[in-house]
Amino acid sequence: MAVPHTGSEAMTPDAKRSLVAALQAFLPANAVLHEDEDLRPYECDGLSAYRRLPLIVVLPSTVDQVARVLTLCRQHEVPVVARGAGTGLSGGALPLSNGVLLSLAKFRRILAIDPVNRMARVEPGVRNLAISEAAGAYGLYYAPDPSSQIACSIGGNVAENAGGVHCLKYGLTVHNVLALKFLTIDGDLVTVGSQGLDGPGYDLLALLTGSEGMLGVIVEVTVKLLPRPERAQVALGAFASVEDAGEAVAAIIASGFIPGGLEMMDGLAIRAAEDYLHAGYPVDAAAILLCELDGTSEEVADGVARVREIMERARATEVRTSRNETERLAFWAGRKAAFPAVGRLSPDYYCMDGTIPRKHLARVLTRISALSREYGLPVANVFHAGDGNLHPLILYDANKPGDLERTEELGGRILEECIAVGGTITGEHGVGVEKIGQMCLQFSPAELNQFHAVKAAFDSQGLLNPGKAVPTLVRCAELGAMHVHQGALPFPELERF
Amino acid sequence: MAVPHTGSEAMTPDAKRSLVAALQAFLPANAVLHEDEDLRPYECDGLSAYRRLPLIVVLPSTVDQVARVLTLCRQHEVPVVARGAGTGLSGGALPLSNGVLLSLAKFRRILAIDPVNRMARVEPGVRNLAISEAAGAYGLYYAPDPSSQIACSIGGNVAENAGGVHCLKYGLTVHNVLALKFLTIDGDLVTVGSQGLDGPGYDLLALLTGSEGMLGVIVEVTVKLLPRPERAQVALGAFASVEDAGEAVAAIIASGFIPGGLEMMDGLAIRAAEDYLHAGYPVDAAAILLCELDGTSEEVADGVARVREIMERARATEVRTSRNETERLAFWAGRKAAFPAVGRLSPDYYCMDGTIPRKHLARVLTRISALSREYGLPVANVFHAGDGNLHPLILYDANKPGDLERTEELGGRILEECIAVGGTITGEHGVGVEKIGQMCLQFSPAELNQFHAVKAAFDSQGLLNPGKAVPTLVRCAELGAMHVHQGALPFPELERF
Repeated sequence: MAVPHTGSEAMTPDAKRSLVAALQAFLPANAVLHEDEDLRPYECDGLSAYRRLPLIVVLPSTVDQVARVLTLCRQHEVPVVARGAGTGLSGGALPLSNGVLLSLAKFRRILAIDPVNRMARVEPGVRNLAISEAAGAYGLYYAPDPSSQIACSIGGNVAENAGGVHCLKYGLTVHNVLALKFLTIDGDLVTVGSQGLDGPGYDLLALLTGSEGMLGVIVEVTVKLLPRPERAQVALGAFASVEDAGEAVAAIIASGFIPGGLEMMDGLAIRAAEDYLHAGYPVDAAAILLCELDGTSEEVADGVARVREIMERARATEVRTSRNETERLAFWAGRKAAFPAVGRLSPDYYCMDGTIPRKHLARVLTRISALSREYGLPVANVFHAGDGNLHPLILYDANKPGDLERTEELGGRILEECIAVGGTITGEHGVGVEKIGQMCLQFSPAELNQFHAVKAAFDSQGLLNPGKAVPTLVRCAELGAMHVHQGALPFPELERF
Repeated sequence: MAVPHTGSEAMTPDAKRSLVAALQAFLPANAVLHEDEDLRPYECDGLSAYRRLPLIVVLPSTVDQVARVLTLCRQHEVPVVARGAGTGLSGGALPLSNGVLLSLAKFRRILAIDPVNRMARVEPGVRNLAISEAAGAYGLYYAPDPSSQIACSIGGNVAENAGGVHCLKYGLTVHNVLALKFLTIDGDLVTVGSQGLDGPGYDLLALLTGSEGMLGVIVEVTVKLLPRPERAQVALGAFASVEDAGEAVAAIIASGFIPGGLEMMDGLAIRAAEDYLHAGYPVDAAAILLCELDGTSEEVADGVARVREIMERARATEVRTSRNETERLAFWAGRKAAFPAVGRLSPDYYCMDGTIPRKHLARVLTRISALSREYGLPVANVFHAGDGNLHPLILYDANKPGDLERTEELGGRILEECIAVGGTITGEHGVGVEKIGQMCLQFSPAELNQFHAVKAAFDSQGLLNPGKAVPTLVRCAELGAMHVHQGALPFPELERF
């Protein structure tokens, strides 16, 4: 895919040598990588369709070193891309050929677990799951659970405002982070947030969360911990149509209680998962719902009974409930492995991340089917139904001429459908380089200008992760992209809901 | 109290006349107030110790009119202070003698209630309680419930990020707002947020929430609605010491479930409330806790039994539980009327709003008692114990020479204690003019500079509500205020928790 233009010029070999020397003055030799073979592992993140070798990779291990890297880059006017574990799916950590890639991989210490106030203070390179493992000794855990939680880092989670299966009940990263320390491009250390529920001053904590490394470099994260629920149980409902499953989703939410997770898989995804894992999923179903309830034993028993009743009323052809922890994990296994399972069906797949108001689930899924037929590209749907966060997986073959371009176009059309029903182009994966074109559709020029003004308030020279997340108006004009958020909507009545 | 310096000059009578004429060109005559007797009702908000007549008050009734007011003020370089219902407790809507007070009082329409997606779209002048009343037809309500909810407006709630008794479980305003439309000082309409859980771009929704009218003027708010819980019940525990009550708070939270509300009142507040309302509170207690559980009948019954057990283990001298809705409301009546009840004990009182980590409750309350004795000013404590949001009420007599100054000093000392244990100077009332001096203690120069840079990204001329919320570094230097957030802390071990 075409790498977006970043507006900066290539660096001369001499200038590169002098920058390397300046970095080596305060970093150990093995913490400054500048040879092609050493740079190769950093050429992409989880969005591997986009690749580019960075100029230099640095691996500092102290906050002071990070501050010196930033001050040096600012002096040399060299752009900086911060990287956590590199599992991001929108290319937020894609390097720049004229820029420094700043890896936070060495920041792996858990600094404090405070069971009384239910908080953990950690370095940004700590893995998401490692926090829950450390907190487990106190019966606590960190709620947001992106599929990549074994590998992804908390700093990256904050940068992309990561979600997960349980964010319907427990919120996204932004709802589970209490405080951050970050370095500005000038090397100043700024603390935002507090141990309290609210703080004075502008909410820079929320502003930094999801800002994709464009406002500052996060060097410490304080997260909220939750007590492990006493019990969790999953109800699996099979449906003969996506519409019936969509109706069940609406009815479950409308009934007033909030499941720990509420996930949908369509027929293609169900069969792929079943072929791969033999989880026992009903392969004839057009859609399945996985609805997890957690809480006290009484709450869960009551909730599962109500969910079963609602699913049956929505014409479920079958409802199963997990009878023990092994069965519960087996129910989830197929869902958790759905992406690789679908991946086996086709040489390549492209994972989308649009969000729509729940009530439009059936309408948008029907539209996606029609688009899939129009483009001749199969689309599997595996997604967070409870919060309307779709993950259509478009199956394609990068070696087939034109397939990739058609995939990108189909992806764009799907996101436009999301915008048209009042949704957004990203739910939890961020914009990165992947969806920067669609930002021109989602936002008006006044809104994009406001984003740029905020960016300039942190980084007036535009050195932090340039070319990501927020397109320039020039780029929108080049794309011929038209803002559809307000004005001529395909469903104009939706603006008034 | 001394009104903070705003850095702007007085307007000549001629300039005022010309501005009035320009406003009258597009606003009806009764929507432009400029005579002293008409301006009087707007001289203060709920923080009535600070008063100042505005230059002009405007009462537009359409978004277009607001945009024209802003563009005009920008042309004339006249500062603008937006005002909702004027119930704020930190002086956020205190007018400027050289500025326009922009009242949103005429924006009182509920634009849409969407029961399926559980959202309400309303104008900013709609009263907090009116949203719940309108949503009640669908069994839904809007969760944040500041004490002033009968009168306060949703626009003001967003501007101050208001809380309430139930924010422990349901969050502050920022956690319950889905989207905003606001006008920039240039008159551009910007939409932030969406109907989805997350959105692309920087989180300007959270940034605007709690920004105290300094970044833009909110003209539309979309809020989340929740289903009314099936049942709610309150447990009232009496304790012989504040330490025991603090221990019960910690144990309730540690037990893993989150009460709908968890409030504490100390002896002085209990007796004041009882004298006023005869709610049947135990007047000999040193502290009472009110713990509300809500949810399904089973959950609530289970929760109340567990809370009773925890309170008894923390040496409660008595635990009562509400047997029906009338009793539940009676239990709350004393708490809800605590401020006016305490107000009867003394000619004046000053309500503080610090936040501390829950585990330091007993320590900070003991310290407040000692300070109260030191200053010879009684302090009653009525507060959101569950989220560590203190509301010490300092009793004083404004007619007694020196009392007001000593009250301000004592208030400052209490907030410094909050900062020292890792807390903040405001929980839900905002900074306004009231706590602007303490901002110098809470934040470092680098942090304050970052706030100013963000402000400039929205309002480069500083025309929106100048002099509030974020102090200039010059003002901090004048105050001789020292940053205590990092560095020489009274309890240095707390930085590491």
